[in-house]
Amino acid sequence: MKPKRFALTPGEPAGIGPDLCLLLASQAQPHPLIAITSRDLLLERAAQLGVAVDLLSVTPDAWPDSPAPAGSLYVWDTPLGAPVVTGQLDTANAAFVLETLTRAGQGCLDGAFAGMITAPVHKGVINESGIPFSGHTEFLADLTQTAQVVMMLATRGLRVALVTTHLPLRDIADAVTPQRLERVTRILHADLREKFGIAQPRILVCGLNPHAGEGGHLGREEIDIIEPTLERLRSEGMDLHGPLPADTLFTPKYLEHCDAVLAMYHDQGLPVLKYKGFGAAVNVTLGLPIIRTSVDHGTALDLAGSGKIDTGSLQVALETAYQMAETHL
Amino acid sequence: MKPKRFALTPGEPAGIGPDLCLLLASQAQPHPLIAITSRDLLLERAAQLGVAVDLLSVTPDAWPDSPAPAGSLYVWDTPLGAPVVTGQLDTANAAFVLETLTRAGQGCLDGAFAGMITAPVHKGVINESGIPFSGHTEFLADLTQTAQVVMMLATRGLRVALVTTHLPLRDIADAVTPQRLERVTRILHADLREKFGIAQPRILVCGLNPHAGEGGHLGREEIDIIEPTLERLRSEGMDLHGPLPADTLFTPKYLEHCDAVLAMYHDQGLPVLKYKGFGAAVNVTLGLPIIRTSVDHGTALDLAGSGKIDTGSLQVALETAYQMAETHL
Repeated sequence: MKPKRFALTPGEPAGIGPDLCLLLASQAQPHPLIAITSRDLLLERAAQLGVAVDLLSVTPDAWPDSPAPAGSLYVWDTPLGAPVVTGQLDTANAAFVLETLTRAGQGCLDGAFAGMITAPVHKGVINESGIPFSGHTEFLADLTQTAQVVMMLATRGLRVALVTTHLPLRDIADAVTPQRLERVTRILHADLREKFGIAQPRILVCGLNPHAGEGGHLGREEIDIIEPTLERLRSEGMDLHGPLPADTLFTPKYLEHCDAVLAMYHDQGLPVLKYKGFGAAVNVTLGLPIIRTSVDHGTALDLAGSGKIDTGSLQVALETAYQMAETHL
Repeated sequence: MKPKRFALTPGEPAGIGPDLCLLLASQAQPHPLIAITSRDLLLERAAQLGVAVDLLSVTPDAWPDSPAPAGSLYVWDTPLGAPVVTGQLDTANAAFVLETLTRAGQGCLDGAFAGMITAPVHKGVINESGIPFSGHTEFLADLTQTAQVVMMLATRGLRVALVTTHLPLRDIADAVTPQRLERVTRILHADLREKFGIAQPRILVCGLNPHAGEGGHLGREEIDIIEPTLERLRSEGMDLHGPLPADTLFTPKYLEHCDAVLAMYHDQGLPVLKYKGFGAAVNVTLGLPIIRTSVDHGTALDLAGSGKIDTGSLQVALETAYQMAETHL
């Protein structure tokens, strides 16, 4: 069996992404892991951090087949648009950031990489540069021509997928349509089977309203939209439970017996996930034809170059990508 | 100093409320605690459970001044409308349930009780009996002629108060007005000082939208409503932080340094609270002229008479009421 090879994108060059890659290199990875970024940037940041990392340049015409030794890091050198000042955003490097994502995503599609792991980008500076950009997820959906993706966060013992993601609260109720709920549930169910190796995933589904609508007294979306949709999918054999009240569902009695929770919106599902998994949560994009995981934190511009950062979330993102690649044969 | 006396209402007579009172009686309380319910009901349920509890009848003309010994329970006998069948709702007992609440609430207003602790009622059966009833909180607000109350849930290490409570999700955004936010924040701040003895409460406030609106990209309520309101209250000296993204706020870095979280709505704040405090959370009504705490669970009709219940939440509700009464001099 060939060793699996993975791509790591450090994201925003002025943020903590380069630091994370360098700190990570103190330990060997189980698979070849290739940072797609500027070699100069890594050298400068390593000097700033005072860490010694051996940068091993690689290119598509000679991919490595074994992991880099501890203390070293494979780098596919990608030129910056302008020199990086640690902690300072620069629109001149927006195209560079997107190029690293394109190289990683295209490499996954081409079979060079078994999956990609992303450190945070800064949406604002990319948009300010004149390139419309909604986020990693949407960028990779476009690159891979995927119509619908699903955002799932995971930590040890809990996975939470979202029916809607980055919408104003007042727009959520109308966005939870039978069509969207069905598409998202199908993707979650299929990816838990295919990418996580769970033969018959058991999924708990939140209601949209408090108390899951309390029999229609607190909103009718459970009765009109969620229940009929779940019933239709159950008739195909899916093991779906709910709609359940969110403040009842996120308790051990329920969580101990499920493979994933499907929340209707961001702030219904993610506070518990991040509370439980603080510093060790991973963001997984489901529905893509490639494996992509991400850290669950931001660029932390003020901490770049300081060394006062935690690689916990990146470690979980790597482990999750490795596990998914093992499963997804 | 006179011992403080407390009222305990078992709520729905067919549910687990009577069981909780009886199981609780195995240990002595630090203060006189008076169950306001039917003596016959308690005798029958005790026989069903196979527990021996000495029921000590008391009346308003001779309140006890010392706690009941372990194995006994003070009872202010309140007649049922019809005999109770364990686990079966009966509209004939709706007026009885409300009479127990009136006795407890009025006793608090009159000074007979230092506070009241409530076990769950069943809203549906009371409404079916023809008496409009929205819940304990609203009932006690009416009884005490209080215009605005605030629902707060608490467990060890975390308190979460809500700006809006039992509303359909699609109605929440419009309900978060500057007026409501200001009133709720003032009540929370005042009660943390007066009923919890926190001289300068530090309160973390959630945004309404995901990522607290991300600078207006995901909704403008933070900019138009929440920030100006908090700024106005800060100028009076309140220690208010936010609006913060809910999935960032509920992490140790923030929670370790706050006295309460103010969430904008039910499913934004309560899943974490109940996840953290499962089985040991208490519901406190702020803004009332009396002290009222409650268990955080429902009537559990299917468990009534089984003995398979946990008094954890009731114990926390009692402890919280006792502590509040000590503080509120």
